[in-house]
Amino acid sequence: MYRAPVEEIAFALKHVAGLKAAMDAGTFGDLGEDLVDAILGEAGRFASEEVAPLYKVGDRTGAKLRDGAVTMPPGWKELYRHWTEGGWNSLNGPEEYGGQGLPTMMGVATLEMWNSASMAFGIGPTLSMGAVEALEKHASEDLKSAYLAKLVSGEWMGTMNLTEPQAGSDLAALRTRAERSGDGTYRIYGQKIFITYGEHDFTDNIVHLVLARLPDAPAGTRGISLFLVPKFLLNEDGTPGARNDVFCSGIEEKLGIHASPTCTMIYGDGFAKGREPGAVGWLIGEENRGLACMFTMMNNARLLVGIQGVAVAETAFQKALAYANERRQGKASSYSGEGMAPIVHHPDVQRNLLTMKALTQAARAIAYSCAHAIDMARVSAGADKAHWQDRANLLTPLAKAFSTDVGVDVASLGVQIHGGMGFIEETGASALLRDARIAPIYEGTNGIQAIDLVTRKLPLGNGEHVFGYVGELDGIAIAVAAMNSEAYGRTALILEQALDDLQSVTRHLQKQLGDGRTDDALAGATPYLRLFSLVAGGAYLARAALADGDERRISLCRFFAENLLGETAALKDRITGGTSSLAAAAKALISA
Amino acid sequence: MYRAPVEEIAFALKHVAGLKAAMDAGTFGDLGEDLVDAILGEAGRFASEEVAPLYKVGDRTGAKLRDGAVTMPPGWKELYRHWTEGGWNSLNGPEEYGGQGLPTMMGVATLEMWNSASMAFGIGPTLSMGAVEALEKHASEDLKSAYLAKLVSGEWMGTMNLTEPQAGSDLAALRTRAERSGDGTYRIYGQKIFITYGEHDFTDNIVHLVLARLPDAPAGTRGISLFLVPKFLLNEDGTPGARNDVFCSGIEEKLGIHASPTCTMIYGDGFAKGREPGAVGWLIGEENRGLACMFTMMNNARLLVGIQGVAVAETAFQKALAYANERRQGKASSYSGEGMAPIVHHPDVQRNLLTMKALTQAARAIAYSCAHAIDMARVSAGADKAHWQDRANLLTPLAKAFSTDVGVDVASLGVQIHGGMGFIEETGASALLRDARIAPIYEGTNGIQAIDLVTRKLPLGNGEHVFGYVGELDGIAIAVAAMNSEAYGRTALILEQALDDLQSVTRHLQKQLGDGRTDDALAGATPYLRLFSLVAGGAYLARAALADGDERRISLCRFFAENLLGETAALKDRITGGTSSLAAAAKALISA
Repeated sequence: MYRAPVEEIAFALKHVAGLKAAMDAGTFGDLGEDLVDAILGEAGRFASEEVAPLYKVGDRTGAKLRDGAVTMPPGWKELYRHWTEGGWNSLNGPEEYGGQGLPTMMGVATLEMWNSASMAFGIGPTLSMGAVEALEKHASEDLKSAYLAKLVSGEWMGTMNLTEPQAGSDLAALRTRAERSGDGTYRIYGQKIFITYGEHDFTDNIVHLVLARLPDAPAGTRGISLFLVPKFLLNEDGTPGARNDVFCSGIEEKLGIHASPTCTMIYGDGFAKGREPGAVGWLIGEENRGLACMFTMMNNARLLVGIQGVAVAETAFQKALAYANERRQGKASSYSGEGMAPIVHHPDVQRNLLTMKALTQAARAIAYSCAHAIDMARVSAGADKAHWQDRANLLTPLAKAFSTDVGVDVASLGVQIHGGMGFIEETGASALLRDARIAPIYEGTNGIQAIDLVTRKLPLGNGEHVFGYVGELDGIAIAVAAMNSEAYGRTALILEQALDDLQSVTRHLQKQLGDGRTDDALAGATPYLRLFSLVAGGAYLARAALADGDERRISLCRFFAENLLGETAALKDRITGGTSSLAAAAKALISA
Repeated sequence: MYRAPVEEIAFALKHVAGLKAAMDAGTFGDLGEDLVDAILGEAGRFASEEVAPLYKVGDRTGAKLRDGAVTMPPGWKELYRHWTEGGWNSLNGPEEYGGQGLPTMMGVATLEMWNSASMAFGIGPTLSMGAVEALEKHASEDLKSAYLAKLVSGEWMGTMNLTEPQAGSDLAALRTRAERSGDGTYRIYGQKIFITYGEHDFTDNIVHLVLARLPDAPAGTRGISLFLVPKFLLNEDGTPGARNDVFCSGIEEKLGIHASPTCTMIYGDGFAKGREPGAVGWLIGEENRGLACMFTMMNNARLLVGIQGVAVAETAFQKALAYANERRQGKASSYSGEGMAPIVHHPDVQRNLLTMKALTQAARAIAYSCAHAIDMARVSAGADKAHWQDRANLLTPLAKAFSTDVGVDVASLGVQIHGGMGFIEETGASALLRDARIAPIYEGTNGIQAIDLVTRKLPLGNGEHVFGYVGELDGIAIAVAAMNSEAYGRTALILEQALDDLQSVTRHLQKQLGDGRTDDALAGATPYLRLFSLVAGGAYLARAALADGDERRISLCRFFAENLLGETAALKDRITGGTSSLAAAAKALISA
């Protein structure tokens, strides 16, 4: 039922996030609008016609584990093959290894479509692409030539192995051991949990990137190394050979994304018969510097999880809108037809639908802008590069946390619009809420994102980078004001006020951090991230409206300003005035 | 894992919602604190020790339909029997029919506990109690004497049959037919959907209350009659005899409350062999006046569904709090122990937990206050009775919609606090979210509640009743100000401001309605209901704090004021300034 909103996505890329200007300036070589449109159109067709129809069987059947092997839902293996044959896995891959070297923006836009069609399908390649990036940046030439081409094409898939039962948000606590074997390889021993696509039947080999600790490593995060551990060791000719000592011992029964196998992986427990226990691994980057390597892929993955939030929100909106136009109940003054009115005519339903639409487009604009910054950092040099890198770093927590919160909220509103039908699994509205609920959790909970924003991103550029960005958003508000058009209502005024709030709160937090009042700053982190995102989202919707003056875009940015941006004042109060009450009240929460 | 918060519930009943003052005034005869505490204590024990342990099997196994018969999950039939033997079903029942005639407040408080332990269990008796009320008020003496005693004891259960595929929120569209049979009974023909506990094995008989239309009935809601249709017709001696022509043809596979059978009921399709098709029914009240009779039980049911929201929020809070005290990750400045800090020490987690706690207690206070108004209306006469009836009517949509929104939001925050574990079904956090999600939908969606509040409740008492209530809340704010205590922080100031907002917005909506700008008023209905509820909830938390001066209550009401009440300004803007943009933007939503 998902129809990829190809035109909307193209518009957001080009006119909101900056692709058009960059292409016009020749930043991406001969990439032009025609090619962009062609890629998006074909991806949209594939997502709508080939991925989406397999959503339901994925949700209902799920991935199944038997004797250490995971079978994917019926039709999914073929789907994955078609998808890689279409070249969709290699869009952003390095050209040296068979990739198409297209901008991250294109990867992100198409990824939105796969995830709209099925989050459980989209998440596998997402992590695999992260593995490509980590290997490309940090692995030895030998490892690259052995693995990268196959990971880029999608012939093999990669995974990220971070979490252990005692080490989730806090990786300092991880215990998986790595021992030097003397021949340059390592042996890995330990248990990893929550490993997405840790085992499946999509590909002939699976390449695990695993965080582990060497015997002589310092304690904490400075003693963690990153290893490549293939499911099958490679033969001389590079084909998969002997089974490595890494096995899936269980998959989780989850609220949603049922077709995505979430695996417990056991390393070096001696399951691979005929060899000494120990999973054979190769070091990526330097010993004890594994976390830095992993962060390469984690940052990227955070944006991509944000895209999942946008994606599921888009599908939920489409589904709710279709239902609201079809379902008839009661009378409505704006409906002059016969019989009961389609519920889309009821003002309360309209408010919900517009909230869904506006939040989805705001989240998309933020995420795409983050992708644009990544692209610009890649092609720039010197001060420009640093600027764009800072920008990508600043926007990543917004793209991850705001978009995934939007995913849950919009999916929940979608259930509500369906009324009683929304609670029936067959309808499919509730499945989107079930899927969406993981995205605020994985790849760093949204609380962690907010803390990252406040403690690591506000200090960027000596604390000035953030104000440069706010200044750019301010330019949009000024441009709206200059239109002097009634159609925008109070948009400019409200946006200006919200930007003022954002600025003063940012200074407030920077001062708290400077004064060592870290706990107060941390207590305000989540409301701050939301405030920041609402302002950025509102400004981007206005930029979209200014770009082509389309009446629908203008009315949507006005709706956002006049209905959703008002929240920023409350968020400001919460940050500046609410944190001292928090400390007092929190005492009652703590057990003896 | 649920532990009934017996003391908190008792405190909210007595000191926030008004039970203590009413008992002291002798309003409820010899009901005193000792009896209240004893009942709550025993209910808490039963809920925690007998209902809660059967939650998981209910969720995992669910209710099963086979050959028209529904089997409840293992152990549930015995649970229901123990529960009725404990007298819990008859708490509020009329004494004339074996009930205990206790105040609604006591029924509501215990109902919270059953629903905290299992919403799927709690919802069945909820509807049965609604049936008791409708019969008591509207049925003939013959029907009462045949059915009421058994429904009050719980030996039989009752259901509400309203919804049909084309008639959900809009009952005017219902088509189920009723024909006069000539002997004073009627024959019912039609299909009803979403019938909660429409079929099960708890009881030997099930008493369906069914809305249907007589052949000569006027169109619309003025042509609907209410009928009693028992599953088994009664023998001369009152015992269940011949099978009536009403059968369950299907049960829904739902997102949550899996153990609650949601039935499609077929009336009069000739399944009962050996008789002419047609389900035998008896008229309740007058012909064509069925909707008024049904509203008796619907109003009651709306409050009780609100209680479900409170209930699941309470359980989600308890679960998240326990997890946050147990799970250790990272360092926290407020934690001086060894190793990683329990995550309850992290300010961002504290914010989430306090938000959960404060919203839960606010919702509880509103719902209990509504129950108190119902009780006062029952025992009062004349102007007092009208006053309390108006009060109950005013608070019902708040109690239903705000509490159930809180249920979903708090359950979702609970999932978030559990991190990755929250997404794993075994943990149980996600199940609470799945359960909670129905409550904003059934018994009138929360959008319908908001419309009810604006269009039917604001006009009460010539539009003055609402201001009387706001004045009472204002008295609380004044009392806080008079404390002149630093511990309350800015509570009084913020509460006053929020009350001003509430007042001005109320006048604004009344004026819109008066001017015939109904659509604008409807567009603001949902934000208005939330604004109203936040103010009431904030005031009630302050009343609780004032009642005993407990430090924890003071800090919680302050947290609510300084962190959650700021939203009212944004809601006010949305209502007064946001609705014109809504109409403009909504055009794009409507299909050709």
